[in-house]
Amino acid sequence: MLSPIGGRKGQGCENMDDVLKYLDADRDQCQRDLCELLAIPSVAADSKYHPDVRRAASWVAGQFQSLGLKTEQIETIGQPLIYAESPAVAGAPTVLVYGHYDVQPADPLNEWISPPFEPTIRAGNIYARGATDDKGQMLTHVLSARGWLKSRGELPLQIKFLIEGEEEVGSKGLYDFLKQPGASEKLKADIVVISDTSQFGPGQPAITYGLRGIAYFEIRLSGPKQDLHSGTFGGAVTNPLNALNSLLHSLRDADGRVQVPGFYDDVLPLTTREREQFAALPFSDAAFQEQLGVEGLFGETDFTTLERRWARPTYDVHGLWGGYQGEGGKTVLPAKSGAKFSFRLVPNQDPQKIAASLEKFLKERLPPGITMELIYMSGAPGCVVPLDSPYVAAAEKAIEGGFGRRPVFIREGGSIPIVTNFKQQLGIDTLLLGWGLDDDNTHSPNEKFCLADFHRGIRASARLWQELASIKK
Amino acid sequence: MLSPIGGRKGQGCENMDDVLKYLDADRDQCQRDLCELLAIPSVAADSKYHPDVRRAASWVAGQFQSLGLKTEQIETIGQPLIYAESPAVAGAPTVLVYGHYDVQPADPLNEWISPPFEPTIRAGNIYARGATDDKGQMLTHVLSARGWLKSRGELPLQIKFLIEGEEEVGSKGLYDFLKQPGASEKLKADIVVISDTSQFGPGQPAITYGLRGIAYFEIRLSGPKQDLHSGTFGGAVTNPLNALNSLLHSLRDADGRVQVPGFYDDVLPLTTREREQFAALPFSDAAFQEQLGVEGLFGETDFTTLERRWARPTYDVHGLWGGYQGEGGKTVLPAKSGAKFSFRLVPNQDPQKIAASLEKFLKERLPPGITMELIYMSGAPGCVVPLDSPYVAAAEKAIEGGFGRRPVFIREGGSIPIVTNFKQQLGIDTLLLGWGLDDDNTHSPNEKFCLADFHRGIRASARLWQELASIKK
Repeated sequence: MLSPIGGRKGQGCENMDDVLKYLDADRDQCQRDLCELLAIPSVAADSKYHPDVRRAASWVAGQFQSLGLKTEQIETIGQPLIYAESPAVAGAPTVLVYGHYDVQPADPLNEWISPPFEPTIRAGNIYARGATDDKGQMLTHVLSARGWLKSRGELPLQIKFLIEGEEEVGSKGLYDFLKQPGASEKLKADIVVISDTSQFGPGQPAITYGLRGIAYFEIRLSGPKQDLHSGTFGGAVTNPLNALNSLLHSLRDADGRVQVPGFYDDVLPLTTREREQFAALPFSDAAFQEQLGVEGLFGETDFTTLERRWARPTYDVHGLWGGYQGEGGKTVLPAKSGAKFSFRLVPNQDPQKIAASLEKFLKERLPPGITMELIYMSGAPGCVVPLDSPYVAAAEKAIEGGFGRRPVFIREGGSIPIVTNFKQQLGIDTLLLGWGLDDDNTHSPNEKFCLADFHRGIRASARLWQELASIKK
Repeated sequence: MLSPIGGRKGQGCENMDDVLKYLDADRDQCQRDLCELLAIPSVAADSKYHPDVRRAASWVAGQFQSLGLKTEQIETIGQPLIYAESPAVAGAPTVLVYGHYDVQPADPLNEWISPPFEPTIRAGNIYARGATDDKGQMLTHVLSARGWLKSRGELPLQIKFLIEGEEEVGSKGLYDFLKQPGASEKLKADIVVISDTSQFGPGQPAITYGLRGIAYFEIRLSGPKQDLHSGTFGGAVTNPLNALNSLLHSLRDADGRVQVPGFYDDVLPLTTREREQFAALPFSDAAFQEQLGVEGLFGETDFTTLERRWARPTYDVHGLWGGYQGEGGKTVLPAKSGAKFSFRLVPNQDPQKIAASLEKFLKERLPPGITMELIYMSGAPGCVVPLDSPYVAAAEKAIEGGFGRRPVFIREGGSIPIVTNFKQQLGIDTLLLGWGLDDDNTHSPNEKFCLADFHRGIRASARLWQELASIKK
């Protein structure tokens, strides 16, 4: 597994047995608190639950207040942000902890074994909507701070908590707040900590040090001014559906390489060391194929499946339309066609630059009689956290302490826009410390969180404050 | 323009002023009848309209019954056939009139200026789905027969009407009926007459002597067993939408040549004479582009636009689906995708042979992790009618009488599979006498039929019975 290069050198940690002992004694209360929060149906997507979303916000604010932290409920254009901070500690870094108290809708309800907002323990897991995403994971950091404050009376470094209520619906309120004057100053910190991802596998904790970005487009083609009969007109004019197939096909070659000029120019290549470390992870193509129900995998040649998922850019079509989709046959040569597609980007690729090159590439290939509208719907660059930072080394040590096993260093193929946003707006890197598991059913019925991991997460978090505090500024 | 070789020599026609006078007086009633039939949404492709399809069948049967013709509603494996016949006339030929009472789907509804099933007259045209294809054109023969029967009490020759309700969905019921014992005897005739094509241009009637065939397919692709997140899984597996684009693109090269092996092997080439005659027709690429609202035409190199439309095979996609088509973006890697497409065929190409070659071609190109279902939905070979027959000469004279101008001899890019079938199953050639216009928007929103041509068609049809009757058997 990956080991950070350089980093903090053998600086002994202060003894923190008192904190850990408190956390041992606090286990039942921690679970009761978790159950209380999970019982609030704070579904941000559905306005009928908005009073519950506010109730969850108040519950979180109440926790911080009871710890004596300076706490604010920040109203936004959407749901409120809960902000709390402990006092600055001279010579120690400041950490910004981000999380969210809103949850995904619980549908389809009939597939839940126990009701989504009645937390239920079965076989060592707690089942409820939001158990892992993100109430349970987020709470580990609140409860570890409680451990410190109740046992020591103080934290070893300044923690700023920023807990939002719209992560599952696009974080509009938070993004708007980040643009307000004073936001950067308020949130100023040396490192961000987020627990909203997964371990590599059961018993194998992980630090996610890279995310892919995205550039998302919609293409609309127009041909003849109206639908035509393909018998009378077929062979005379370009069919917008045929044109769509050809244009979308032209974006990639048979080996899965994107053909947009300059697409790979800025790609930050995987280091030999990263490739070796990925290869050492316990991952089987055969098991993965079976999980997906496919008889073969596909992607850029010369890269392994994990490399392609985590650290190589891709091109995927997300939706196609045009012509007749109903029952039976219709011999139409349609006037219009369209598609949605995106490129997943890797660190250092610039979505704007790719959008411009893409538009030129497609325009040059437009067949006769076809006009195109290309809409750049959204974009975010990928990011990697430098592995040779003392923060990464601190997190590695804290997790080893909390979970009894050294974490592996992995990447994630999706995008977490807030991570990019913290980097761009505040200039701060993020530690993604995931306590969840891939089979936790986030966004699905029967979401769960392993209670042992909940408590290990709290202990890792408590150690993290200690480890980070020992990084001298 | 092409002139038929040989044919009937200057045999004077009996005076038929009484019939034509009756038709003059019957004009308004003819239009009311047309509106009644057009108001029935007899969309065979959509099962929710099937009660209306039956209603249209009954309406047609009612017309024949009111004329005192021996009328039958023949139940089939699909929609009913309406059959009616007048008594045999000794020494005169028998003509089989074929038409269809079903129509194409009306989608997209929002592009219709007046509702598709509320016939509306604007600027001398009647607008409704089926106005020209084929309710309006088919009715001209029913109404011309009414003219003869109401004014004379009899027809000058035996007419057998066969009006079906599944032309737009492949005529399965009719084809099955044609294979039944007794069908050939019942439909025995010397010539078939069909009006389901177009004039060459406004005021320039035409006899269509060649049709393209068709081979129509639906392709369904399956990839992962469920929709996946394109961030977590993109780059690892084949996306069924990407696969669809590539497969559909692979069917044609950049010059518009179909790539299915053997596709062009059996193509009956145009004669030098045909190419010269097509070139002599008043047709302008620039005007055609303007008519369609496109800035350029496209098709196989080395062929003129008319040649490509009438006598060259093509490949067109008719509908695409898969993934997310709603507002905004969704980063889905969908489990399935699909499309409908067809090849237009020219005389001598065999759709079955092409279907087999296509399936092999696509199977060889299936990317890893994708399974395919290829459905051969319908097919018919193209055909050409001999120009040197007395029936063609009779039609030429009748049209000149009805429209005031000699028809030109053209081909049509669409398919009328039944024409091939009548030739193959019954051994009878077909006269394709089109009263429509190229801009009638068949299969598109705002389908129309010029009312003057509707009445000219009725008169040409009335004359046709007289002209054909004078061909001594």
